[in-house]
Amino acid sequence: MNYRMIRNVIGRIMCVEAAFMVPALLISLYDKESGAVTGFLVTIALLLAAGLPMALIRTVRRGFYAREGFVIVGLAWLVVSLFGGLPFFISGDIPNFVDCIFESVSGFTTTGSSILTDVESLPRGLLYWRSFAHWLGGMGVLVFILALSPLTRGKGDEMHLLRAESPGVIKGKLVPHMHQSAMLLYKIYIGLTVVQIIFLAFGRIPLFDAVTITFGTAGTGGFAIKNDSMMSYSPYIQVVTTVFMIIFATNFNIFYFILIREFKKCLKNEELRAYLAIILVSIAAITINISSRYASVGETIRHSAFQVASIISTSGYASTDFDLWPEFSKGILVLLMFIGASAGSTGGGIKVIRILVMFKAGKRAIYKAIHPRGVKLVHLDGEVMEEEIVSSVQSYMMIYFLIFFASLLLVTVDGFSFETNFTAVAACFNNVGPGLAGVGPTMNYSQFSMFSKIVLCLDMLFGRLELFPMLILFYPSTWKK
Amino acid sequence: MNYRMIRNVIGRIMCVEAAFMVPALLISLYDKESGAVTGFLVTIALLLAAGLPMALIRTVRRGFYAREGFVIVGLAWLVVSLFGGLPFFISGDIPNFVDCIFESVSGFTTTGSSILTDVESLPRGLLYWRSFAHWLGGMGVLVFILALSPLTRGKGDEMHLLRAESPGVIKGKLVPHMHQSAMLLYKIYIGLTVVQIIFLAFGRIPLFDAVTITFGTAGTGGFAIKNDSMMSYSPYIQVVTTVFMIIFATNFNIFYFILIREFKKCLKNEELRAYLAIILVSIAAITINISSRYASVGETIRHSAFQVASIISTSGYASTDFDLWPEFSKGILVLLMFIGASAGSTGGGIKVIRILVMFKAGKRAIYKAIHPRGVKLVHLDGEVMEEEIVSSVQSYMMIYFLIFFASLLLVTVDGFSFETNFTAVAACFNNVGPGLAGVGPTMNYSQFSMFSKIVLCLDMLFGRLELFPMLILFYPSTWKK
Repeated sequence: MNYRMIRNVIGRIMCVEAAFMVPALLISLYDKESGAVTGFLVTIALLLAAGLPMALIRTVRRGFYAREGFVIVGLAWLVVSLFGGLPFFISGDIPNFVDCIFESVSGFTTTGSSILTDVESLPRGLLYWRSFAHWLGGMGVLVFILALSPLTRGKGDEMHLLRAESPGVIKGKLVPHMHQSAMLLYKIYIGLTVVQIIFLAFGRIPLFDAVTITFGTAGTGGFAIKNDSMMSYSPYIQVVTTVFMIIFATNFNIFYFILIREFKKCLKNEELRAYLAIILVSIAAITINISSRYASVGETIRHSAFQVASIISTSGYASTDFDLWPEFSKGILVLLMFIGASAGSTGGGIKVIRILVMFKAGKRAIYKAIHPRGVKLVHLDGEVMEEEIVSSVQSYMMIYFLIFFASLLLVTVDGFSFETNFTAVAACFNNVGPGLAGVGPTMNYSQFSMFSKIVLCLDMLFGRLELFPMLILFYPSTWKK
Repeated sequence: MNYRMIRNVIGRIMCVEAAFMVPALLISLYDKESGAVTGFLVTIALLLAAGLPMALIRTVRRGFYAREGFVIVGLAWLVVSLFGGLPFFISGDIPNFVDCIFESVSGFTTTGSSILTDVESLPRGLLYWRSFAHWLGGMGVLVFILALSPLTRGKGDEMHLLRAESPGVIKGKLVPHMHQSAMLLYKIYIGLTVVQIIFLAFGRIPLFDAVTITFGTAGTGGFAIKNDSMMSYSPYIQVVTTVFMIIFATNFNIFYFILIREFKKCLKNEELRAYLAIILVSIAAITINISSRYASVGETIRHSAFQVASIISTSGYASTDFDLWPEFSKGILVLLMFIGASAGSTGGGIKVIRILVMFKAGKRAIYKAIHPRGVKLVHLDGEVMEEEIVSSVQSYMMIYFLIFFASLLLVTVDGFSFETNFTAVAACFNNVGPGLAGVGPTMNYSQFSMFSKIVLCLDMLFGRLELFPMLILFYPSTWKK
């Protein structure tokens, strides 16, 4: 294990996190929130005190493999989340330390599950930090560092890191160099973020609201600054947010293809077509199912579209209390939690492309049962899919369901209802945020025990990093010589 | 498609079903239950009228492939279930036709989910028929015919049929000829059945009770003849049933190895070890979790062991209302529903061996993530597992979860609670019987709509036949020239 390199990268990440806390600190200073000011100052000092010496360690090129990439990513997210929770604790606004970690993990993993019973009482500096964590976690902490500067002299190293943090399904890159790829992704990300803020600002809401809503949308996180999430905002704000939730859960390669005017590649993209088809069918089905509940067809479609976009993108905002919807509509939303966003987006969940591969592999299995000696290849976007990829998607799903059911069993110790437990694990593991019943859109995660909160934190991290970095971090043989 | 052969086999199966109705008819005659007598007589007449001419069709050897095997098995189970439901309908004891089919499908698939609100009011002839369906369905309808006589002149044909009905995971056979293999399995099955009846008879219960309980245990079905399932029977009867539920959910190969004194092969069998380990750990965990609920430790262990054996074997008997247990114990039971019995047993569920392969494939995926160019084989019972088998287990699981979630969405239209819907689908798809909440051990499936009952019937058939026969039956391209 290349410990020098690991320490060096973790150190650099801590310094970056310290830098990112400055805007939140400034807001706290402006608002004269002395608790929050102390919280951010102490945390920044701790991050720099621990991070700077590590960042200055001279690295050794040799011995940097996939294993190191996963370990760095897993550790980085743990460290960033732990320090990210400190301001809440030091300021005294969230008295319980595990709750602080939960809120921070939920922020960086873009989950948006909260233990706060009264979000509105939180100082603005902390609200900003919470939402900013979504924005940073959406694209990835390491991708950001890669975008800033080439990390090492070896191209392979960066590949290991980027793969570990943003696995996608098919390992492709937009442009030859990782550093350029990461920069391009961030440019698109920042561009879309600015556009959403401008659109929201037209809706005559405070800039602070526009910025935090956008952070939560861009990262597909869903932390709101109001206790009723997005319910009290105007229809215009809700519609804009709906559109941008769908946009940010789209594979970013699509935007790159649009930028370089390769429209054919977008139209041919099976994941994009499936993603949009699932959204349209879900909106239609829910609209019909809940048609009697709202004053007009327009309002029905607006709420239906908002919730579908929010759940499939794994954002988790709510424009209405969907826990009161009929079981069929709630059933669709639960399915969408699992399906999740497109690969290569900021969203979570299983990812549409994996669902596609599952369907195709299933169809092939039927074909093989009928023709035991027949050969059938799996195609995607008109090309033959490597058998290795099909098999890795299947293995991913195996581990996914094993972790899901194990977590479900662990949180049952708290004694909540099956619906609460099931949707809490589904919402955290898929980085959605709210679930149903006890964790519905008007509820929160405060009632869970410390033990369950830690389980749910791990689920968020496993989900956001697509299992492997965390698995490998906790896998004993990783640490053997 | 070899239609002649399909008609011939289906015809023979219908004649066999008619013959198997005779004991139930005799009981009805003895009890002077005129409705039931009419029901059985008319059904037997219909079966013979339709089945005999088909059974006499001259078959053609050519063109009998895997596809025909699956289609015959799928059709056979549909036909047997449909006709098996007729006596309930004609006798007037179950007035709704879909309910009759549900009860019959639940019987033959060894599920044990019932729509009856008062089982005890049913005539004994119909109770007998219901339980006998478990016994027949447990080992398989076609296996029975294969045991009676070599089906065709070609060995390959029988292999196709047996594989389609009793897929297991690893295609092995005990003895060279299918006919002999099937006979041997039935000999073990009948032997164990007789032993259980004798053990139960020692418990001073009526012979009728002993026989029906045994049918439900042997087939891992779980239809009871009392409204409270097995709650009012003596501890002795409950303990005997516990032991036999565990036995009948064990791979029958193990009994064959015991018969030929190959004890080493039993000890080496990883599935057996995992199966027993899961049982022991589950009993221990539940015993601790429910320790305050019963008068003595002995009683606690008895109920814990009974429910664990009942659910993992997918029988579905209840010695106590486990729906009142704490969430953690219920969580374990829900997991056991999915895990299910051993392959090559009469039980349902995913099967322990598939869970084992999932774990091993998951471990390998972690290894592969760390060593992208490394090669790691999956081992089972000390031997290398063919990649084809690992991949087919994974494909199976993909289809399994797709069907599970699709069914879950479909039954939500009835508007019951999430827990009811989830465990109803889990209990039917895994052929368990009772679930939790609205379908708990003291409840039944009567409240579901016709639509949901049909969905659940299909789930039972998909589950019992391990997906493929039903998938292929409903797959459009199966029927193309």
